[in-house]
Amino acid sequence: MPRRSEHSLEEIRELALQAVNDLVHSDGVQGVSARKVAARIGYTVGMLYHVFDNIDDLILQANAKLVQQLVAQAELAVGEQAPANALRAMATNYLELAQSQTASWQLVFGHSMREGRAVPDWYQQLIQRLFELLEQALSRLAPNQNSSKTSMAARALWSAVHGVCLLSTDDKLNIQGDVDESLALEMLMDNFINGWCAPHS
Amino acid sequence: MPRRSEHSLEEIRELALQAVNDLVHSDGVQGVSARKVAARIGYTVGMLYHVFDNIDDLILQANAKLVQQLVAQAELAVGEQAPANALRAMATNYLELAQSQTASWQLVFGHSMREGRAVPDWYQQLIQRLFELLEQALSRLAPNQNSSKTSMAARALWSAVHGVCLLSTDDKLNIQGDVDESLALEMLMDNFINGWCAPHS
Repeated sequence: MPRRSEHSLEEIRELALQAVNDLVHSDGVQGVSARKVAARIGYTVGMLYHVFDNIDDLILQANAKLVQQLVAQAELAVGEQAPANALRAMATNYLELAQSQTASWQLVFGHSMREGRAVPDWYQQLIQRLFELLEQALSRLAPNQNSSKTSMAARALWSAVHGVCLLSTDDKLNIQGDVDESLALEMLMDNFINGWCAPHS
Repeated sequence: MPRRSEHSLEEIRELALQAVNDLVHSDGVQGVSARKVAARIGYTVGMLYHVFDNIDDLILQANAKLVQQLVAQAELAVGEQAPANALRAMATNYLELAQSQTASWQLVFGHSMREGRAVPDWYQQLIQRLFELLEQALSRLAPNQNSSKTSMAARALWSAVHGVCLLSTDDKLNIQGDVDESLALEMLMDNFINGWCAPHS
């Protein structure tokens, strides 16, 4: 357990974010608390709140690392690939994240703000960036669709992708039989993209 | 609180299933226990286990009521409507169930069998029936698709629909902005169905 003087505030921040990841892996989404994070890194809860505004700020900053990873991958995909392939790459990256870092991935969408706090602007903008990239790819695929339809398509498609990714992390849906989730994702993307590109009435 | 001699075993069964629904609404998916159900209906846990094999059997029998409702609606839709409309009706029924009975709907997919028990055959067959109806409608829409593709499409589509329904029950996804989930569902169904019906390479 480190002594209090051993780390800079930036180092304490990084230690705490890593501790959130470790805790969610060992104790689940409900197992992340300021008390446990502080105990894990050997600092007081008071020191933790010197670095983070509150428990939500701590968890959102940990979540942001995963979202930033998705945004970076999406920027690369949209920048370098044809739009249909970019969309497929974004979906595949999301599934791989769900499979390789399941607990952290669950924390991203499983965390609810405490005490009715609003989600801060900086985090909303990060999520927004991901949707802008989706919309860019969708808009290039079907330039005649208006922007409100494209925006809705991005949200519908991403919720749908999320649902398929649950296949690989949620025992319950396996009642459907032994489904290969990467094939299911391919099926979703192929049909949605074909439908989106088809002439619209 | 009823006395022990007041109800037949069948009545106790119905009371217990209702108590599961009440408890999941008041205490959430994690709040359903044999002790609480027994206390709620004024019988002992021993009497409860005279009527149900175990806590899983009790919860699955409660869940089955919802799934049976979906199956009945799906049979009607597939029997009476053109296949694309039948699929849209099934998706809309699922969303309405998620919205009107959110906690019970969450229990259907949020329940995990205890102590590594297998999901019993009767429950698997009930879920299977729902997928057969989906496959029937998908197969009528695109008769040239082989059965393994149709089966995968049913599972991909249903996972996707489930993901969109989470929009209306999970605060988290609302960070995307104020999304009308019935419009998002329509967007998903339109594109998936158009893609599925399009000529395939």
